[in-house]
Amino acid sequence: MAITPMRRDDTAAPHRGLAARLAIRAGAHRGPTSGLAPGYVQGNLAILPKALAADFLRFCQLNPKPCPLIGSSAPGDWRVPALAQDLDIRTDLPRYRIWRNGELVAEPEDIRDVWRDDLVSFVIGCSFSFEEALMADGIEMRHIVRGSNVPMYRTSIATSEAGPFHGPMVVSMRPMTPANAIRAIQITTRFPSVHGAPVHIGKPEMIGIKDIAKPDYGDAIEVRGDELPVFWACGVTPQSVIATVKPDFCITHYPGSMLVTDRKNTEFAIM
Amino acid sequence: MAITPMRRDDTAAPHRGLAARLAIRAGAHRGPTSGLAPGYVQGNLAILPKALAADFLRFCQLNPKPCPLIGSSAPGDWRVPALAQDLDIRTDLPRYRIWRNGELVAEPEDIRDVWRDDLVSFVIGCSFSFEEALMADGIEMRHIVRGSNVPMYRTSIATSEAGPFHGPMVVSMRPMTPANAIRAIQITTRFPSVHGAPVHIGKPEMIGIKDIAKPDYGDAIEVRGDELPVFWACGVTPQSVIATVKPDFCITHYPGSMLVTDRKNTEFAIM
Repeated sequence: MAITPMRRDDTAAPHRGLAARLAIRAGAHRGPTSGLAPGYVQGNLAILPKALAADFLRFCQLNPKPCPLIGSSAPGDWRVPALAQDLDIRTDLPRYRIWRNGELVAEPEDIRDVWRDDLVSFVIGCSFSFEEALMADGIEMRHIVRGSNVPMYRTSIATSEAGPFHGPMVVSMRPMTPANAIRAIQITTRFPSVHGAPVHIGKPEMIGIKDIAKPDYGDAIEVRGDELPVFWACGVTPQSVIATVKPDFCITHYPGSMLVTDRKNTEFAIM
Repeated sequence: MAITPMRRDDTAAPHRGLAARLAIRAGAHRGPTSGLAPGYVQGNLAILPKALAADFLRFCQLNPKPCPLIGSSAPGDWRVPALAQDLDIRTDLPRYRIWRNGELVAEPEDIRDVWRDDLVSFVIGCSFSFEEALMADGIEMRHIVRGSNVPMYRTSIATSEAGPFHGPMVVSMRPMTPANAIRAIQITTRFPSVHGAPVHIGKPEMIGIKDIAKPDYGDAIEVRGDELPVFWACGVTPQSVIATVKPDFCITHYPGSMLVTDRKNTEFAIM
């Protein structure tokens, strides 16, 4: 992973990324992290036993658009120094999901009691970062305006498999006018570590989406007559793939309850 | 115009840009310049009396996508040093068009006999440059494969007017799969001085194109069911606008007979 050096705030007060994590750690913030610490990178979390970690890492490297790995931990270590200084992956997300043999068994707010010294954390870039850049350019994110979840679809696009990890790419969809779609392609191209450019535009049937009004995850949203549906590789892909593998034990973030990091979204722009 | 310094070949033999101009000047090459001196920038030509030059220059600067000005001359000067060392704009294109009061009056191969010391030459970037970059990336240019002209359309997109110069933007259309369209947007964004990114994608009716099968210039081309029409601002726009103004005298290149320069297409990539 080529990641630019972390820039740190010089002020004595904790910056908003750290402040968000401290609030979550103290139980003062619960629920979704959307809108928390604007400007700071948030990430999807997957925690796997070391026995699966090498294959999963290779899966991410083979599939950088749906699985842009922005940080990982040493086995048993709850820190991710590339993403934050004062970070405890066991307490710093508002809620987690614990899976055993592919079954969801718990949704705790703290995972210290199930922590094991063979667990490896993977943090994967999330669309919040590029959505911020799109909105800063004046492009409406309709699902955000509506207060709903972005619509997501399982596609006919296969991921490249690594060990037991395989399965279809999941995409998110945002409706845009053609002019905004062109601008959005330019803007998101600058952010390869948070999904990058779209994988598809228009013609949902070409990627195996039978009914755009029936997303597999999230909420349906209108595509108007003067708009094209624009599709980005989605960070739900690794979760969907892990669910297929049914590892004896794994932990993911609870949907919408992401890891807030010390990194700025703007740092992730390649130009 | 911010143009990077010209790189010159160190070899004693003339490079292919100059060789093409010398062949044209000697009458050894006639007809279209397409495919001549691969890798070298070609340009659209407009020559106007000095009385109109300031307004036309402003028109180009207001409308950089259809009218990307890559070089201009001093009044009466047949050289364009920014584009080539050994260049005579009066002899170095295979064919010209001479217009008087908006009427086409001649199509000579040499304009030395009509040259005036108040004439100003404008050279405008051309899609040959970005088409080369697209084909190098493996994207088919169907009109080239077919040996036909790219289809062009007058749109409902207005240009920004300057003095007497005004009128609709003309666009060229290339059909592409969605994945190629996304890649083409990325590639052509790197070439702002040769039309840059597309101005529209899909939905021709939104830019005033009633029938995609009936272009206003060039030849119709099939858009397949798994393709989107992708539209770029076109260098025919300034010619169309000049035709509206009906200047008492002007000269343009003959369609397809462009100016071949000493500049490399790769020099025009901004990154």
